[in-house]
Amino acid sequence: MVAASPTHSVILGIDPSLRGTGYGVIRIENRKAKAVDHGTVRCPAGWSRSRCLAEIARTVGSRIAALHPTACVLEGLFYAQNLQTALIMGEARGASLVAAAEAGLEIFEIAPRKVKQAIVGYGAAQKLAVAKMVQRMLDLPSLPDADAADALALALAYSQTLSRYSFDSVKRI
Amino acid sequence: MVAASPTHSVILGIDPSLRGTGYGVIRIENRKAKAVDHGTVRCPAGWSRSRCLAEIARTVGSRIAALHPTACVLEGLFYAQNLQTALIMGEARGASLVAAAEAGLEIFEIAPRKVKQAIVGYGAAQKLAVAKMVQRMLDLPSLPDADAADALALALAYSQTLSRYSFDSVKRI
Repeated sequence: MVAASPTHSVILGIDPSLRGTGYGVIRIENRKAKAVDHGTVRCPAGWSRSRCLAEIARTVGSRIAALHPTACVLEGLFYAQNLQTALIMGEARGASLVAAAEAGLEIFEIAPRKVKQAIVGYGAAQKLAVAKMVQRMLDLPSLPDADAADALALALAYSQTLSRYSFDSVKRI
Repeated sequence: MVAASPTHSVILGIDPSLRGTGYGVIRIENRKAKAVDHGTVRCPAGWSRSRCLAEIARTVGSRIAALHPTACVLEGLFYAQNLQTALIMGEARGASLVAAAEAGLEIFEIAPRKVKQAIVGYGAAQKLAVAKMVQRMLDLPSLPDADAADALALALAYSQTLSRYSFDSVKRI
């Protein structure tokens, strides 16, 4: 399903949010994607915003240092309920992006609908459908939690655009 | 006008934006505020968003390492024209906050109107009026640029709340 990339063989997907940033790293080997690592940065409600942001940057940075991805993929054209939500989501994105940019990764955005289309074949797919398909595509022993699944889906969707030489839905940021 | 703080004598103000993040560091000595450093992180339009964010975090981090502020102050309750603007502003804030939080600073927010009230005495003051008052309060040889002046104003406004023991307009984040 996923072909080898000429440029990036280890890809980090990130689904940032203040209390639960999902991350997932895939490696492309023999034209197939394998999950290297995935998880969620959990920041309890009692933590200050700035403490959460530092934890997000620290965790993303440590995964990059350990696993050496060369590309990082986030959602573009996101949805937010209001300005305050957008601001807080932006702060979590900024914390993630700083960690990736400081490590020299190439950073890309893909629109959420494009990710769902690429993984499930349907742009308005539910989160559970995405997680189940991610589990199947990567032969994961158990269902990844929703945030980590979204991050793995971003990495997988990006790897598909590489194999197809169709970069139209990917934007470098 | 500004009294010594029992807890923080070197204060960093930050006015984050993607292309021009203002920063200013003040030191409280003998119940008077002195400007230690101020400037603007300029990121040309040709730079990618992620490169700008890394530059913001790098510059803020280097000023913290050099000048050892113990408190960091940003604007709270900001205004943005739309969700996309809020997201991008949030990313710049996230980059700044990561640098401050990683260095262990206490981080606070003050509403923009409270800053203008504290500095100019009028919550809807123009940017130029803020810059002129900041120049006068800190005996600066020339008018600071608008972004750096806003950052110095944040630091000064915060230092006033310390001297008055009136923390009601300051929120720890």
